[in-house]
Amino acid sequence: MSGRPTLRVGLLGCGNVGTEVVRILRAEGDELAARAGARLELAGVAVRRPGRAREVELDPALLTTDAHGLATRDDVDLVIEVIGGIEPARSLILAALDSGSSVVTANKALLAEDSETLFAAADKAGRDLYFEAAVAGAIPILRPLRESLAGDRVQRVIGIVNGTTNYILDKMTSSGAGFTEALEEAQELGYAEADPTADVEGFDAAAKAAILAGLAFHTRVTAADVYREGITEITARDVASAAEMGCVVKALAICDLRATDSGPAVSVRVHPAMIPDTHPLASVREAYNAVFVESLAAGQLMFYGPGAGGAPTASAVLGDLVTVARNRLEGVTGVGESTHAQCEVLPMGETETRYHVAIDVDDRAGVLATVATEFATHGVSIQTVRQEGRGDDAELVIVTHRATDAALSATVARLREMSMVHAVTSVMRVEAEGE
Amino acid sequence: MSGRPTLRVGLLGCGNVGTEVVRILRAEGDELAARAGARLELAGVAVRRPGRAREVELDPALLTTDAHGLATRDDVDLVIEVIGGIEPARSLILAALDSGSSVVTANKALLAEDSETLFAAADKAGRDLYFEAAVAGAIPILRPLRESLAGDRVQRVIGIVNGTTNYILDKMTSSGAGFTEALEEAQELGYAEADPTADVEGFDAAAKAAILAGLAFHTRVTAADVYREGITEITARDVASAAEMGCVVKALAICDLRATDSGPAVSVRVHPAMIPDTHPLASVREAYNAVFVESLAAGQLMFYGPGAGGAPTASAVLGDLVTVARNRLEGVTGVGESTHAQCEVLPMGETETRYHVAIDVDDRAGVLATVATEFATHGVSIQTVRQEGRGDDAELVIVTHRATDAALSATVARLREMSMVHAVTSVMRVEAEGE
Repeated sequence: MSGRPTLRVGLLGCGNVGTEVVRILRAEGDELAARAGARLELAGVAVRRPGRAREVELDPALLTTDAHGLATRDDVDLVIEVIGGIEPARSLILAALDSGSSVVTANKALLAEDSETLFAAADKAGRDLYFEAAVAGAIPILRPLRESLAGDRVQRVIGIVNGTTNYILDKMTSSGAGFTEALEEAQELGYAEADPTADVEGFDAAAKAAILAGLAFHTRVTAADVYREGITEITARDVASAAEMGCVVKALAICDLRATDSGPAVSVRVHPAMIPDTHPLASVREAYNAVFVESLAAGQLMFYGPGAGGAPTASAVLGDLVTVARNRLEGVTGVGESTHAQCEVLPMGETETRYHVAIDVDDRAGVLATVATEFATHGVSIQTVRQEGRGDDAELVIVTHRATDAALSATVARLREMSMVHAVTSVMRVEAEGE
Repeated sequence: MSGRPTLRVGLLGCGNVGTEVVRILRAEGDELAARAGARLELAGVAVRRPGRAREVELDPALLTTDAHGLATRDDVDLVIEVIGGIEPARSLILAALDSGSSVVTANKALLAEDSETLFAAADKAGRDLYFEAAVAGAIPILRPLRESLAGDRVQRVIGIVNGTTNYILDKMTSSGAGFTEALEEAQELGYAEADPTADVEGFDAAAKAAILAGLAFHTRVTAADVYREGITEITARDVASAAEMGCVVKALAICDLRATDSGPAVSVRVHPAMIPDTHPLASVREAYNAVFVESLAAGQLMFYGPGAGGAPTASAVLGDLVTVARNRLEGVTGVGESTHAQCEVLPMGETETRYHVAIDVDDRAGVLATVATEFATHGVSIQTVRQEGRGDDAELVIVTHRATDAALSATVARLREMSMVHAVTSVMRVEAEGE
């Protein structure tokens, strides 16, 4: 291995992912050198608490609490940011780029909030900013979207990009458990955090959806552009209704390209939905992630794997590190941000999909006709209705053809005002069918 | 779009894939230019029969029967080879590289036979040779293996890389049909060719397995190194036996990295095998392809999509074309062949897996003990036995623990010599379990 140049790596953060990065950098030093064309040497590790016990042994001389100092050191060529969150991560990445380092980050929140500033800085510095680990952990999805599909037109991306919610919904599906029970089990097993808000309310998935949509459609999308619904209101009954339709309930991140009068526009949303059993995403179990891509020429593709965890995320970080090291040696940069399409983001009301609506109504003649008329009045076409009498009241389960979210919402609001309607017990989108 | 440079593309071959390449180059000209950083202009198309009707309109001035002339023209920068086969494809690719063009090819047979010559020529010329379309059609798998997983250690690749055999086995599974009936249906629907040998005997999959193993393990593997069994002897009974075990029969390309006393070695093989229903590969239906990857840090990944067809293959070709165009503008080359691991290829006899063996025997006391002893004598440990009496004879269905192919083969040869054994009706590998 002699004769190879050395590139020095500054690691910002040493939690689960950082620890694995250090471990692999050491264990696979020769192999990584052969692949990158340069030895990758750890120059320093910025941590908040240098005295803390870690799963990897670190020379105390490598540890520093001065993250900014490490990010901007003259002898550092490549910086890995695995601190997470908006600040100080953003300032550190900008400082690293400005001082001439290429950067690899796993920071979905930051990329979904302010990719514009980051990419402008990378561009100005003539350095790489890579972030495969930010979406779907170890699954190579950003590079395929940016590079492999560069000769194609992606039209839709549907992702299971949050392992916690997939685990909870999978448990609800397999055991009939309710949300709270499934969440508790997920927390006991370490698949959900003590405060599960970021996962179960869809914030984590929304950040990833913004990143996926931007790459897939060559435009800029931020987390604030993403419509978001969590899974906390999904009931065992919803899951059972889905099964009756030959469907399962999944928490999805959906990115659509739509033709509009003023050009292509994107719709980006995160919410639970029913998908058919036969869809490749339906068999994604436990905490696994998968991203399903529909493109004009390639057709239907799916990328599957672990969406989180120290080692899987480190795999993605190190794959990027090898590439930015190679680029650094060649004096070039890889594919940067591509926003030439400059698509408008459609408001949720204009998004079209199918809906499953369950309604408790009076069990008497004429109710179905009245309810059906209400759908028709709002331009929502009904595909199937199932009515089940239960004594005084009955349940109507209606599945619609494609309708806009605005039309469906207006229909449901009106149904809720009708005296013959006791309750609208469930409204869920039905996605991912051959449309 | 003014101000962008132009790169001129020579297209060798204009069948299904070539036609789609032309169509997309035209339909997406502006978009491809934005992504590549250069306009990609069709300089010429080499065909055997210029007068033939095509699904895409071509200026007759672009057509030529002189493929070598086109491949070496001074004003051609990028050459796409979609002729297939060994010659003249190899000579044309070598000539194109030698005259300074970068090359994109979909030619699995050639890459599996002689990647060494091709990559040496690319290296000498300082040009790119890309071939994503050669394995699993539109599915981005080569780039993820070469680049995304460059910071990880791939340990195993299991692919469903031949759509025809997956279609046939899927039909046998869903309908209970025999091989011949399912093949005929596949032929009627265009999923199998009139002469299906390359597919059903595993030649096509073996070429792809060689390419996958080379990329996954950073070593050189040729099609001749690949152990190959076709699916022509799979019976409806085998498929039913698999179902009884909670398995399905799939035609698999399996690439394993194994530690041996003399260092890491690879095992590469193509054959039908039983895999558990619950494995992600089990739900790959019809003519779809999928590649399942196990790596040290990332864990289990799967890449799924259409493995053939004009448009999907063209998507992969054009993704490569955009990359080699970008590299050309930057004056660099991408990741080339990586054979630094130089692994030995293990003979099939040393490959280990589990086996499902069905035997017709005399239905009398002591037979099971004798048969079991024969397995033990060869060091093959039995996991389960099921015995079913059927009057004069009985069927023994034996599933083994992991054993070498040599030990299993010796056991089966010995069983066939025993008078109490009427016939060994089925021997099939059982793969892809948590081992």
